[in-house]
Amino acid sequence: MKIAQFGLGPIGIETLKLAATKSWVNIIGGIDIDPAKIGKSLGELTGVPALASAKVYPSLETLLAAAGKPDVIFHTSVSKIKAACDQIEPMARHGISVVSSCEELLFPALRDPAAAAQLDATCKKHGARVLGTGVNPGFVMDVLPVCLTGVCRSVKAIHVQRVVNAATRRGPLQKKIGSGLEPAAFEKLFSEGKAGHAGLKESAALIAHCLGWKISNITETCRAMVADHDITTPHVSVKKGQCCGLHQYGEVTVGQEVKITLDLKMYLDAPNPHDSCQIEGEPALSMTISTGVAGDSATVSAVVNAAPRILKAPPGLLLMTDIGVPSFA
Amino acid sequence: MKIAQFGLGPIGIETLKLAATKSWVNIIGGIDIDPAKIGKSLGELTGVPALASAKVYPSLETLLAAAGKPDVIFHTSVSKIKAACDQIEPMARHGISVVSSCEELLFPALRDPAAAAQLDATCKKHGARVLGTGVNPGFVMDVLPVCLTGVCRSVKAIHVQRVVNAATRRGPLQKKIGSGLEPAAFEKLFSEGKAGHAGLKESAALIAHCLGWKISNITETCRAMVADHDITTPHVSVKKGQCCGLHQYGEVTVGQEVKITLDLKMYLDAPNPHDSCQIEGEPALSMTISTGVAGDSATVSAVVNAAPRILKAPPGLLLMTDIGVPSFA
Repeated sequence: MKIAQFGLGPIGIETLKLAATKSWVNIIGGIDIDPAKIGKSLGELTGVPALASAKVYPSLETLLAAAGKPDVIFHTSVSKIKAACDQIEPMARHGISVVSSCEELLFPALRDPAAAAQLDATCKKHGARVLGTGVNPGFVMDVLPVCLTGVCRSVKAIHVQRVVNAATRRGPLQKKIGSGLEPAAFEKLFSEGKAGHAGLKESAALIAHCLGWKISNITETCRAMVADHDITTPHVSVKKGQCCGLHQYGEVTVGQEVKITLDLKMYLDAPNPHDSCQIEGEPALSMTISTGVAGDSATVSAVVNAAPRILKAPPGLLLMTDIGVPSFA
Repeated sequence: MKIAQFGLGPIGIETLKLAATKSWVNIIGGIDIDPAKIGKSLGELTGVPALASAKVYPSLETLLAAAGKPDVIFHTSVSKIKAACDQIEPMARHGISVVSSCEELLFPALRDPAAAAQLDATCKKHGARVLGTGVNPGFVMDVLPVCLTGVCRSVKAIHVQRVVNAATRRGPLQKKIGSGLEPAAFEKLFSEGKAGHAGLKESAALIAHCLGWKISNITETCRAMVADHDITTPHVSVKKGQCCGLHQYGEVTVGQEVKITLDLKMYLDAPNPHDSCQIEGEPALSMTISTGVAGDSATVSAVVNAAPRILKAPPGLLLMTDIGVPSFA
């Protein structure tokens, strides 16, 4: 499978490094707008000698001209649906399939149904598949809970909790959750859409879609978690009383009933990290993944593992729940 | 969706009762060879008044002649692949899709690759989809562990444990696990293929298939669980020292390495029933469903919930992991 990488930030580099370990992958190049990276070899950027002959190009067209057409592009550059669609549309027009870590692409119809419909039409016209995935959104707070309902005869409500010790995560994430800010300053940034976890509403919308629940209201709140001691990581320093992470909460009501609650805590030194989910229904189910699913490594895995599955699916803008069951590839 | 039910034993009746609650289901009839049931109404057999006009027919052909062609048949009559293929082949030849609780149909190529290939060819020729599913096999010891590996960058081994308190289950299951027999007598029955849990090897084979592991050896053992006190259920009476259930264990080696272990305990008064799974890999994952997934109700749910998903899949003899993610329907 010929693969190219769009976006060579930390997640893009990790995606390439993982992809390079797969026998079914042939990496033909990368795309990034950073002048410091253009023209360099992916071997140099990743430290993987086998990628020495694959180069970084400034655009899709230059990659196509120089390295040929990939079967799949791994897209790890943006969180917003509009920007993602603008970048992915030309790929789909060339019939190239895309697996993206764009959080809003998990359920693209939520924020931009018109862009989603257009990208879907382009995919179908040119034989491309496009999928948004990851670990969260993309797995622990949406796909996995949906999967559990497959053995239920009735489902009344779904509750999901995720607790992440952000001290174990990459620097950009530690900053994204407000580490070191005053709590009020972080909450203001969140309210302006400039901080916080992207994709919580998409997780909720995907669950509702799969369960056939017509959303009456979907809400999201975010509060700062306040450090009760000084915390220092390789990336940030936080004083007692400052923000050390977030508590983000999403809720879906159908009619007057609360049907979905998603509770996410990501903060430095969080004790007892875990992923859990309760299905209120018959049978009632209560699942826990102790220590939780580590975010960065798992997101990269979800992206790479999805490539063989999307190529088996019919063309279109796909949902994680429409293609085959997630699986190591 | 026009539905017919093949096999009107306890699981078939429960399948019908659940299907009758679904707005997307139109039940047109049942098929059973029991003379006491033929000609009766499904309303009478299930106690569901809405099914009063649907009848029991002695064969597929008589149902087709009298009630028309169903889109999907729920098949809940046998555990063995050969018998299932013989019953399902004529349905597929009519282009009718089938969701079956036949345990060996979860991974049909394991025991009878020739029959599986033939049924697959028939399905493709006539536009039918056939799927084997259930809660175990079909979900907790195979599909769910596979699903977890979707966020793994490497998988070294997979271990699954299921503990079921059989005292909460239906009478036939309490007998199938040897309740009230002498332990040696039960173990002899198991060795003759006349008792025990069907489908453990299929679960292991499905996991290996999804992970791309070439099985060197697949083994299965079964020991009696011995009652440490007298146990009485509505269905069986067991004296201390008699068999009160089973401990069945399956193992897959690839080369010299043990890659999959499946450990199943089903016995009367089992404490702490649960389903758990550990993925040895990166990230390592440890999942538990406390109290476990109740068997009978969940199996019926898995069968009914699968119907909309198979109709979206391309024709063929399908695997649970090839179609969309399990979901309440």
